[in-house]
Amino acid sequence: MSHDHTALFRAELSRRGLDGFLVPRQDEFQGEYVAPYAERLKWLTGFQGSWGMAICMMDRGAIFVDGRYTIQVREQVDTDLYSPRHLADEPPSKWMETELRPGEVLGYDPWLLTPDHVKRFEKACEAAGAKFVAITDNPIDAVWADQPARPLAPVQSHPTQFAGQSLTDKLKNVSAELVKSKADAIVLTTPDSVAWIFNIRGADVSYTPIALAFAIVHANGKAELFIDEARTPEDVRAQLGASVAIKSPAQFLVALGGLKSRVLIDPDWVPEAVRAALAATGAEIVNGKDPCVLMKARKNPIEQEGTRLAHRRDGVAMVRFLRWLESAAPKGRETELSAAARLEFFRQATGELKDLSFNTISAAGPHAAIPHYSVDEASNLPVKKNEIFLIDSGGQYLDGTTDITRTVMIGKPTDEMKDRFTRVLKGMIGISRLRFPKGTCGSQMDVLARQSLWSMGLDFDHGTGHGVGSYLSVHEGPARINKSDRTPFEPGMILSNEPGFYKAGSFGIRIENLLLVREAEAIPGGERPMHWFETLTLAPIDRRLIAAKLLTVEERDWLNAYHARVERELSPLLAADDAAWLKKACAKI
Amino acid sequence: MSHDHTALFRAELSRRGLDGFLVPRQDEFQGEYVAPYAERLKWLTGFQGSWGMAICMMDRGAIFVDGRYTIQVREQVDTDLYSPRHLADEPPSKWMETELRPGEVLGYDPWLLTPDHVKRFEKACEAAGAKFVAITDNPIDAVWADQPARPLAPVQSHPTQFAGQSLTDKLKNVSAELVKSKADAIVLTTPDSVAWIFNIRGADVSYTPIALAFAIVHANGKAELFIDEARTPEDVRAQLGASVAIKSPAQFLVALGGLKSRVLIDPDWVPEAVRAALAATGAEIVNGKDPCVLMKARKNPIEQEGTRLAHRRDGVAMVRFLRWLESAAPKGRETELSAAARLEFFRQATGELKDLSFNTISAAGPHAAIPHYSVDEASNLPVKKNEIFLIDSGGQYLDGTTDITRTVMIGKPTDEMKDRFTRVLKGMIGISRLRFPKGTCGSQMDVLARQSLWSMGLDFDHGTGHGVGSYLSVHEGPARINKSDRTPFEPGMILSNEPGFYKAGSFGIRIENLLLVREAEAIPGGERPMHWFETLTLAPIDRRLIAAKLLTVEERDWLNAYHARVERELSPLLAADDAAWLKKACAKI
Repeated sequence: MSHDHTALFRAELSRRGLDGFLVPRQDEFQGEYVAPYAERLKWLTGFQGSWGMAICMMDRGAIFVDGRYTIQVREQVDTDLYSPRHLADEPPSKWMETELRPGEVLGYDPWLLTPDHVKRFEKACEAAGAKFVAITDNPIDAVWADQPARPLAPVQSHPTQFAGQSLTDKLKNVSAELVKSKADAIVLTTPDSVAWIFNIRGADVSYTPIALAFAIVHANGKAELFIDEARTPEDVRAQLGASVAIKSPAQFLVALGGLKSRVLIDPDWVPEAVRAALAATGAEIVNGKDPCVLMKARKNPIEQEGTRLAHRRDGVAMVRFLRWLESAAPKGRETELSAAARLEFFRQATGELKDLSFNTISAAGPHAAIPHYSVDEASNLPVKKNEIFLIDSGGQYLDGTTDITRTVMIGKPTDEMKDRFTRVLKGMIGISRLRFPKGTCGSQMDVLARQSLWSMGLDFDHGTGHGVGSYLSVHEGPARINKSDRTPFEPGMILSNEPGFYKAGSFGIRIENLLLVREAEAIPGGERPMHWFETLTLAPIDRRLIAAKLLTVEERDWLNAYHARVERELSPLLAADDAAWLKKACAKI
Repeated sequence: MSHDHTALFRAELSRRGLDGFLVPRQDEFQGEYVAPYAERLKWLTGFQGSWGMAICMMDRGAIFVDGRYTIQVREQVDTDLYSPRHLADEPPSKWMETELRPGEVLGYDPWLLTPDHVKRFEKACEAAGAKFVAITDNPIDAVWADQPARPLAPVQSHPTQFAGQSLTDKLKNVSAELVKSKADAIVLTTPDSVAWIFNIRGADVSYTPIALAFAIVHANGKAELFIDEARTPEDVRAQLGASVAIKSPAQFLVALGGLKSRVLIDPDWVPEAVRAALAATGAEIVNGKDPCVLMKARKNPIEQEGTRLAHRRDGVAMVRFLRWLESAAPKGRETELSAAARLEFFRQATGELKDLSFNTISAAGPHAAIPHYSVDEASNLPVKKNEIFLIDSGGQYLDGTTDITRTVMIGKPTDEMKDRFTRVLKGMIGISRLRFPKGTCGSQMDVLARQSLWSMGLDFDHGTGHGVGSYLSVHEGPARINKSDRTPFEPGMILSNEPGFYKAGSFGIRIENLLLVREAEAIPGGERPMHWFETLTLAPIDRRLIAAKLLTVEERDWLNAYHARVERELSPLLAADDAAWLKKACAKI
């Protein structure tokens, strides 16, 4: 299939006088998930990872992937057509410098790359004596016979009851930020900023309830939303009101052409095509952060109360699942897929689930050692006795987005499993218990999640935590907990806290709760305002995997208090037998 | 006095057609200490702090100081002449923008500012319609009648026996770095880089054994050292050998003029005058890090062994001092000054002390709450019963530089004192015990020094640690432990570990040990290479101030093991009565 498509594509490139084309995985919205019409990299090469980039020349090609996909790329892609490269060791720019021939013309779609990408690739092509040329009508779209249509589903209102703030107030706050940075308008090109500011949601991609749409917000508080009018039901139009003009996506470029004054764009997210259009009509471009990102990250009191409700509801599903797993798994008939389906069933049974918040990671035995494992029919392992089972999952509810990982022992753990699990737990508790001054960022506290592993010569190769949206993206910027992030934590931010340990080919551990950053109440004798983390996630942590002697008194106290709270908050929502099970699962250590 | 000097200075400015002049505290070497001839800010304004900057106009003036000196500046400076400003709130550039008048000409000495400073100030002056003009012959020097001579003391060799590496090898390594960054030469303008690369030491400023001299190192391994030949004894000349040409300081500018090719300068440290001289003769300037900084920070095995010896020797002095203090202080006749003198006496008694490594901070009672307290006859407090006494001090020995802080209870502590002391100790132990992967930097581990204080709503307002030289500066770059530093820790680096707590007007606590970064031995089951800290400082920590119940088992184990090691390593070097005292001071908790 990828051979046929590549042949078709090359013929089209040849018709256009191009020697090659750059095909990234991302679409014009630079998000984590793309709609089927934009799965161009998959159509061309067969590659299904969440990040990748191919260069297709007439007689050769390459595909660039990161460490997560070095095995998968060889299973899915014809490597005679696309030679696999590790993104970190041999990035596309390096390939361009060394593999392009003088005089060759490499095309790219300026909607799919940011200005920084384009600058870097232009320079690399130049070094090889080649040219990097913007082609606005994507040649894949010209030859992709059964390319799916763009999403046309109606947009939904996300009412103030859940959003906690009217779009009028949000527009007012964003325009105040524009005035502060002396900009007359901002072009919003990321759909979660658009969803947030207009209090709308959509169903255009999997897992993240966004509508794929661009918008312009002016410093005078007026805005334009570029979306097919047919997609906006009457209640949405009423909500948008007089301040927000609904225009068709085709009018977006025209509107950009009308912006003559100072226009703010976020260079990390904006498509090169938008920058070029603004530059062409003489607008003065101001590079800066999209102010929606920080405002969206600081959940307001209604969103905070919503996420508490969502987490209680999600906790009920988790408890029912964990109880089911404990009795079903030892019978030996369950698999990664059946377990994931059962958890989804319990989430559906809440009656409130809108979608999963990402593709469930359901990983048995050695699969748990692959942090980003994705199960399918081919990989599906049985959930076996005396193995660890890891499940990382979440739900989208109108009042909040959840993301939880639990690592469960089926049968009897080894001492090594207990030691590693307890060290991961100590890390999770270390972050959870921390009080910290205003201005503290994730890279300052990341060590707390790792030090117990470090002391044994161990570590894990992913961040400790990411931001989480409010009925929006489960991976939301700007704050993170990792070795380098410098974004100060502010009250209202939701972060995951998910240290892990992975023994390749053997077992894996990850324990994840979501945390809400809050202002701490003053302590007698305390001199400075502090922040603390309210734990949102409510589900028991497998006591069978805990080596209690490794916990300090404070850690044990935290765990017992957490379990007591889980039982107290969830029991009233559970059937009697589930509540009885939970009582045991939450017993003191 | 400052009034007379300012009048003299203004007359000189007027003769030169200037409307004002910028006078920084620093000299042309940008170091922490300056020689008497360069104390221009003090001569002009009376200000004696270690950092400050004055602007003297014909009819007005300002002096800029940081948080440490906001009180001191008002005691030392005629504020009618120089209006005090807080550096962070109202930096000099802001003053220039708002207080300079159109057409005014503000002069500066380009030897005393870095290019970045100059650029910022030029812009600020421009915004006010004023001019910022380089004046190479400093007008203060023209009117300072009894300006001290520049230091003329002979330079000493710092032989390989202590330096651990010959200057030939050092020149080879630095020239290899130059080749790597495609530079033909580097201008070394910081005297500790000069001291390090040529294995020489001097006595030109207090506390840091440097000679104030510039140098040029060429990619071919040849070098020029600009210093009066009379200052280089024969053994130094023999050591410098054929590769190093000794030239008079007057030839420095001539030599810069001869550099036509790519020249590396470190923009954080180079005087603007050097940059300008290079630019004027058409050299291609490469801005980059001075490679000596990192090489100097990574102490070689001989320097590491040397610092161990120095710390054992210094520990003996500390034990004798602490024993003396315990018996002398309760008699009520000791003061901050007498205690500092007594400690210096014990350091002198080692027979190896070259100098103190900084001005001893000897602080009784409420003075201990001032982290950078400096005692003089006027401030000198008695060491009183039921108060805390804090002493932060260090010695310069040929084989190493020490820096230690101990906080000692005279009489009986309050519960609050014990609680705070124990939390500071937990922080100190948290850093000391850490194992960490290669690439970890100080801002990642700083939280360990603070979290116990944070949990009570407390913190301290200084970094947790700084780099330390080898018979060089007690404050050495590039690595630090604080909330923001990103320099990876490398084996051989020496860092201080000195959390504190300060209750203004009441008491202060700081506990400081020096640490040596080392590669950790593999642990069974460990998967990754780790680093650890070897504690260098050997002196007991006051057990009377420890609330043992606040320590975890691991913390208590660390403390007991540390005290056992202190006793084991120091006892053989002590008189019997001192050893008996130490045994008690190091008893298990």
